[in-house]
Amino acid sequence: MNKKPLILVTNDDGITAPGMRLLIKAMNEIGEVVVVAPDSPQSAMGHAITVNNTLFVEPVNIDIGPQIEYSCSGTPADCVKLAVNELLNKKPDLCVSGINHGSNSSINVIYSGTMSAAVEAGVEGIPAIGFSLLDYSWNAEFSHVKEHVKKIAQNVIENGLPDGVVLNVNIPKISDEEIKGTKICRQARANWVEEFDKRVNPHGKEYYWLTGKFVNMDKGEDTDEWALTNNYISVVPVQFDMTAHHFIDNLNQWEL
Amino acid sequence: MNKKPLILVTNDDGITAPGMRLLIKAMNEIGEVVVVAPDSPQSAMGHAITVNNTLFVEPVNIDIGPQIEYSCSGTPADCVKLAVNELLNKKPDLCVSGINHGSNSSINVIYSGTMSAAVEAGVEGIPAIGFSLLDYSWNAEFSHVKEHVKKIAQNVIENGLPDGVVLNVNIPKISDEEIKGTKICRQARANWVEEFDKRVNPHGKEYYWLTGKFVNMDKGEDTDEWALTNNYISVVPVQFDMTAHHFIDNLNQWEL
Repeated sequence: MNKKPLILVTNDDGITAPGMRLLIKAMNEIGEVVVVAPDSPQSAMGHAITVNNTLFVEPVNIDIGPQIEYSCSGTPADCVKLAVNELLNKKPDLCVSGINHGSNSSINVIYSGTMSAAVEAGVEGIPAIGFSLLDYSWNAEFSHVKEHVKKIAQNVIENGLPDGVVLNVNIPKISDEEIKGTKICRQARANWVEEFDKRVNPHGKEYYWLTGKFVNMDKGEDTDEWALTNNYISVVPVQFDMTAHHFIDNLNQWEL
Repeated sequence: MNKKPLILVTNDDGITAPGMRLLIKAMNEIGEVVVVAPDSPQSAMGHAITVNNTLFVEPVNIDIGPQIEYSCSGTPADCVKLAVNELLNKKPDLCVSGINHGSNSSINVIYSGTMSAAVEAGVEGIPAIGFSLLDYSWNAEFSHVKEHVKKIAQNVIENGLPDGVVLNVNIPKISDEEIKGTKICRQARANWVEEFDKRVNPHGKEYYWLTGKFVNMDKGEDTDEWALTNNYISVVPVQFDMTAHHFIDNLNQWEL
């Protein structure tokens, strides 16, 4: 008997998010699915973990389907830690996070709760993928994304990933016919130019809202930004060894 | 006239933390200091930013000294964004974060609020350093660390750092006489083996506390873990291009 792979599904938009509901449907077609996802949205949480507070986990049933689901009070990284160490009785064959409502390309990878879950799984030795659609709307059209997501997930199950590497997949906000294909990319050198919106509260106290403009200063045609702008799905292999190996020799010349 | 460098100081333990008070003293000796730090502890916040909530900033005066200080309701990354975009009228010459009460070596870099502030500064094009002492106690002995911190900061001011690179400095919990020197290192491949502590609350509901055991599976003598165990200060150059460049060719063979 060919046993189905065990797939852990999580996200950062919260357990009821349409993007994850579609991801669960796609994964049900290729494996045995367990969902452990935050009970509320956790966007821009970076790789936060809950060390100074308690964590609650509840079995839930959001959609009809063969998947087993848990709602968790923690961050996406907490969900992965809890799944692997408490809720599952074997190590998953794959962890998928998303599908995020909005981009996690280029520098967004460092702020991304979606990618933090994938990276956490990678740290625990589980092949992992974060999926994002470049549409921030809760009612974004996700259905055409399903086959692409399945194909990438199946490739990871079949080929595996090297230790210390996970995938960051971003999908442009266009119809399926317009998608030209999939490109393996590097992370573009881009950032947010912040524009804080300064206001005064009803009690006369000043406060700020963070807003910003995304600026891509990277002209490379091998970047995720280039791929997305040119109607490709971008796949960036992401590592959590953050060592700038290229600068070690130079640093060794310093008088420290 | 030789103008003093402008130094932005922040941390993740909160604006009153002794580790940062020492860092401010050290930086006062080499530059003009502005502090923008969280009003409460933000440990293990990863690279979280506040997009769905308001941010408050207050001028404060915690210690006597020439530094200007602001307390902020946000995360370490928020503090850097607010400092650079709202509070400072020129770009800092250096951003230092810490001194953290506890280790940020090896995999801890991805969970670290201290390092998220340094990385955020790096993203904004500011030379940046995160400092951590391997002592989690609030009353840790920091005074002997001052000269080491000053030396590294002065080196960064004089030599600069390449675009996309910041420094992660960890200091062993030993007396100054025992410190053998400073080693440039790579991030060790290590992780936390979680052991969730499952309890029942007074209302009969189960909950968890995250605990864990740090496991270093990396035997390399060029890692931060090796340096710290062997009484060296570890300096890891950290990049926020997380692309696993070595795996791109391989991925291009996949049928995606």
